[in-house]
Amino acid sequence: MTEAIRTDLYQLTMMQAYWKSGHNPEATFDYFVRKIPFGSYLITAGLTYVLDYIGNLRFDDEDIEYLRRQGFDSEFLEKLRDFRFTGDILAMPEGSIAFPHEPIIRVTAPIMEAQLAETFLLNKMNFSTLIATKASRVVYAAKGRAIAEFGLRRAQGDGHLEATRATYIGGCASTSNVMAGKKLDIPVSGTMAHSFVTSFDREIDSYRAYADAFPKRCFLLIDTYNSIEGAKKAVIVGKELENKGERLLGVRLDSGDLCELSKRVRIILDDAGLDYVKIVASGDLNEWKIDELMRKGARIDMFGVGTELITGRPAPALDGIYKLSDVVERGRHMPKMKLSEEKAKATLPGKKNVWRIVEKGKFKKDVISLDDEAVENAEPLLEQVVKNGKIVCERPTLDEIRQTVAQNFSKLPDKYKKLDGSPAYPVELSPGLAALRKTIVEKIKREE
Amino acid sequence: MTEAIRTDLYQLTMMQAYWKSGHNPEATFDYFVRKIPFGSYLITAGLTYVLDYIGNLRFDDEDIEYLRRQGFDSEFLEKLRDFRFTGDILAMPEGSIAFPHEPIIRVTAPIMEAQLAETFLLNKMNFSTLIATKASRVVYAAKGRAIAEFGLRRAQGDGHLEATRATYIGGCASTSNVMAGKKLDIPVSGTMAHSFVTSFDREIDSYRAYADAFPKRCFLLIDTYNSIEGAKKAVIVGKELENKGERLLGVRLDSGDLCELSKRVRIILDDAGLDYVKIVASGDLNEWKIDELMRKGARIDMFGVGTELITGRPAPALDGIYKLSDVVERGRHMPKMKLSEEKAKATLPGKKNVWRIVEKGKFKKDVISLDDEAVENAEPLLEQVVKNGKIVCERPTLDEIRQTVAQNFSKLPDKYKKLDGSPAYPVELSPGLAALRKTIVEKIKREE
Repeated sequence: MTEAIRTDLYQLTMMQAYWKSGHNPEATFDYFVRKIPFGSYLITAGLTYVLDYIGNLRFDDEDIEYLRRQGFDSEFLEKLRDFRFTGDILAMPEGSIAFPHEPIIRVTAPIMEAQLAETFLLNKMNFSTLIATKASRVVYAAKGRAIAEFGLRRAQGDGHLEATRATYIGGCASTSNVMAGKKLDIPVSGTMAHSFVTSFDREIDSYRAYADAFPKRCFLLIDTYNSIEGAKKAVIVGKELENKGERLLGVRLDSGDLCELSKRVRIILDDAGLDYVKIVASGDLNEWKIDELMRKGARIDMFGVGTELITGRPAPALDGIYKLSDVVERGRHMPKMKLSEEKAKATLPGKKNVWRIVEKGKFKKDVISLDDEAVENAEPLLEQVVKNGKIVCERPTLDEIRQTVAQNFSKLPDKYKKLDGSPAYPVELSPGLAALRKTIVEKIKREE
Repeated sequence: MTEAIRTDLYQLTMMQAYWKSGHNPEATFDYFVRKIPFGSYLITAGLTYVLDYIGNLRFDDEDIEYLRRQGFDSEFLEKLRDFRFTGDILAMPEGSIAFPHEPIIRVTAPIMEAQLAETFLLNKMNFSTLIATKASRVVYAAKGRAIAEFGLRRAQGDGHLEATRATYIGGCASTSNVMAGKKLDIPVSGTMAHSFVTSFDREIDSYRAYADAFPKRCFLLIDTYNSIEGAKKAVIVGKELENKGERLLGVRLDSGDLCELSKRVRIILDDAGLDYVKIVASGDLNEWKIDELMRKGARIDMFGVGTELITGRPAPALDGIYKLSDVVERGRHMPKMKLSEEKAKATLPGKKNVWRIVEKGKFKKDVISLDDEAVENAEPLLEQVVKNGKIVCERPTLDEIRQTVAQNFSKLPDKYKKLDGSPAYPVELSPGLAALRKTIVEKIKREE
């Protein structure tokens, strides 16, 4: 079984229909997002999965046998044995900042090939981009305090690896997820659970056992029974560690009024001379709660964020779509668009690029243009990543992608970074694209 | 690399601390859900993954080498080479109906083993149970109309396979996901995309090409330009199919006012003698929208549901937890509970079972009891699935689990099936459990 069947059935039925009717023109599809579920910008992520997929896209005997049982045409299935992706792909590099309606990926290939790739591309790009974007919001809210991702237990099953990768791209400092840490070479972090504390007769016995096992990396969970009492016991164990020449690294609060408790615990620690002990907070946190804690002066040094970061809650899906924009017939480009009854669902016709105008080191506005137009004093954002089916771009490391995000984010003006109520970043259509859209809309209406 | 490291780092640091302190008592953990994100009941799912995991739980050289680099103790890592799960697990069978605070799975093992299993168990159970529950709501809202799951493109990455499995358990009829169809032996279904339609010069050309390729399974997407005009063209192609002795199976609406359009399209089809042609509707549907469509008399025969079904939106995570309830020390049971500042986060102490009282074939109420209590006229819901590390239960097929759900659901009184505003199903504590909880709370408070 191959990745080729990680797709919707209709991609394959359409392929058979394209093949049967001898209709396999060169087609261009755009991947873009109509509406951002939170905030004003997207951090793009997931391209690496798409490139791996495109580079290895083929069907094996098992796939073909399964499709035969689903009633596909034998001659068509024989064609699938030689199937390869032979087209071109342009894309914003992973870690770009993108805005609604901008093509993030542009695929040009015989339509049978370009059509098949849709589902996999959407599955990977939508989820990774969603989570990288969410992570950048959480990281921004924490104003420099580290964010540890704790989400594996609430992740949507095996999606957790992609999610953790995207949280790291978006700026998180570490993950609790050992498998992700190993596979992706991301720092791993963790403290202790309530069960560890309650498994001992006394809370302080659990602290001593942990300090003994990890004298150099000891974080103590203090809210199992009462956070203030827990902090006092942590002080005792912190002093015992000092006597051994070690230092307690931190305490964790996981429930209650985190702002108030952090202030009281800070005083308890400081009064005992343990001013170096960090306070970690967790417990259903998100960008809004972290922002509120920071504004209220919480004495928190690090946040553990699970569910919201790993699932994107309250918006667990990005509505990114993959739409046909151009078909070449008899050597002529035929720009395509979907009109539909809902205006927001209409698409932009033609092969396009996106240009970004940067002034004094800050993003000013973007222009979506036709492929053969240039925009003055701007750089095109789409780069060629696949040519004639071959991957032709550099493959950045995860840390490089993370740095790309940080650099791009520093160029985005602050007004677009508000958790809620940011203005829309200006994205204009070039004169050529605006004119083409008008022409196509009129043509479709005339034909009806 | 093994599944053993699909866990949070703290499970492994706690294991080392348990080992280092010689504290590895027999412990019992309960998996349960504190709060249901939608509706009043849960459909449990995911147990099969937990059993596979438990049966194969071990560390390989690669895992151990990675943990060594993370600073774990060499002697502890040598112990991990022989690690096996040796305990007992009781569980509600997959496809059970459960309510808040009821133990769904109960794990008893040396605490090092029981602790490690937490993260994987939560990851699998939380997500599959969430999606099976969501699916049962969508299926219920559709009042017998088939639900086709279309969610792959909006799924949280590789979580899609588990999600599709859970939607099928919850009652969906088919999936668009070819890989899931093949791996899980679920019916696959699909029609055509807007790109197929727009890739042709004329909409009707695309319909003819599809009908020619799939004369026996032709569904036509009619909303690309204008749904009413699309329906009229579908009639032409439907008549052409009739002339070849075939029948158009259906048309699909994907945008606009689905209720109104379905009625108008139904008339167009019926007036042309195509009363056998089904109408499929899709487009950001969920249980509430389907319920409204049904109440307004929409002429829809089948619903395609994507994003909401595959991610559980608006609630993408279940807050299921795994809490220590009992430790055996020096041969004596020491019931455990977490108190915490937030009352809702407190847990139930002791080894427990759940009993269901059924009257006239309908669920009446449940009782959570201590393990050695019996509840009259009731059956215990937890069954032994693992004994001394060996799987001892039957492994039902996916279709059997789906039937279990249907049977259980038919016994749940309708008042608990409302999409919103169902009363809480009555779940009581047995006298023994209520008394134990009181004793433990007093003991903890006294010790503070």
